[in-house]
Amino acid sequence: MKTKLRIVRAGLELFNSRGERNVSTNHIAAHLGISPGNLYYHFSNKTDIIYEIFLQYQKLIDSHLQIPEKRLLTVEDQFFYLEAVFDGLWNYRFFHRDLEHYLECDPRLQRDYRLFTEICLASIEKILSGLEASSVLRPMQGGMRRTFALNTWLIITSWMSYLKTAADSEVGRIEKDALMQGIYQIISLEIPYLKEDVLPLALKLQARYTPTFAGSKPPVEAPGLVRLPL
Amino acid sequence: MKTKLRIVRAGLELFNSRGERNVSTNHIAAHLGISPGNLYYHFSNKTDIIYEIFLQYQKLIDSHLQIPEKRLLTVEDQFFYLEAVFDGLWNYRFFHRDLEHYLECDPRLQRDYRLFTEICLASIEKILSGLEASSVLRPMQGGMRRTFALNTWLIITSWMSYLKTAADSEVGRIEKDALMQGIYQIISLEIPYLKEDVLPLALKLQARYTPTFAGSKPPVEAPGLVRLPL
Repeated sequence: MKTKLRIVRAGLELFNSRGERNVSTNHIAAHLGISPGNLYYHFSNKTDIIYEIFLQYQKLIDSHLQIPEKRLLTVEDQFFYLEAVFDGLWNYRFFHRDLEHYLECDPRLQRDYRLFTEICLASIEKILSGLEASSVLRPMQGGMRRTFALNTWLIITSWMSYLKTAADSEVGRIEKDALMQGIYQIISLEIPYLKEDVLPLALKLQARYTPTFAGSKPPVEAPGLVRLPL
Repeated sequence: MKTKLRIVRAGLELFNSRGERNVSTNHIAAHLGISPGNLYYHFSNKTDIIYEIFLQYQKLIDSHLQIPEKRLLTVEDQFFYLEAVFDGLWNYRFFHRDLEHYLECDPRLQRDYRLFTEICLASIEKILSGLEASSVLRPMQGGMRRTFALNTWLIITSWMSYLKTAADSEVGRIEKDALMQGIYQIISLEIPYLKEDVLPLALKLQARYTPTFAGSKPPVEAPGLVRLPL
């Protein structure tokens, strides 16, 4: 494998496992057993490595959101889409954590991330449109498809942070299964728009992602939870 | 005003305006014209100031989510709730930016933030229940109320970050009006559950929050946006 690609992969691995704030370019070089000079030959700083990782992430998500050209979309398709997107989020999980900081450090990323979001929203709208065309979803009125796509995007991109800060027992340590349970939340948005004949199948598929992590249900006996002592 | 409270207020003001990463306890002391020693008498580090700010934030949000005891909830009520919550988010807007970092630095905050989220979700569920009881919303089946409350919470807490990273023209600079437009997104979740007779009023009230910020609509002519050159 070429050194440049090895650096990007090692950076991603270390950022995901140790947190980006705790990983320097020297750590990445040491992890690969190469000299800092060799790393600097390929990347002048960590910002450039993060940008390269973003380009990979963007390419991956974009490839996952393509619409089949020769057939109609099915109820199952949307689960494949969501599995693929959440899998991408998992593999690039450091990225959404302090995204604002990365964008502040890098005007290229700032511009490209906005474009990336716009393209993702447009892809989600197309998928919704496709599901309406194949009679999975009832037609959405007015600007509802855009609003719905944006809500979907907000839940996808905030789910990891919710798990880490509010739902899991140990901050920063989450399991992939819990991440995938974000799919349960997304499908719930759709339930009122699903046509009668596909609803049972959609609910059955959704049930696979029923939340099981700590905090997914209110504690049974917790008098102290009813009102904080303020 | 007591010095301790002045420190908390100045910290909040500076974290919001300059970003928490860029503000030290010395900056806060200088801003107030007090000595660093005087500040340290009250707070041993920035983490303690952030925790004190969180306690205020929590108290504020909690007070906004109370249910009236002597009357039924109306369509208008939920707009008051949402206005109040988004106003709170605005006043404490630095807090959700790198929340994971704050939680990692402070086990108290880690524990209390989880409890705070749990209480907010329970309050949202109670409000939904109240809106069902007053025939504003159709009854939600099974675990749907919990799922719906969580989606509401995810959108509320991620809206600011979306505006800053993907929607606005300048990262980190957002307007309060754009923040309030998150209410449009939340109400859209509810539309399928609204009873026929309250729907026109809800749509009319929702329209006040129609998104107007850059990126709230797909660009009219943007062939380059259809597919990224990857």
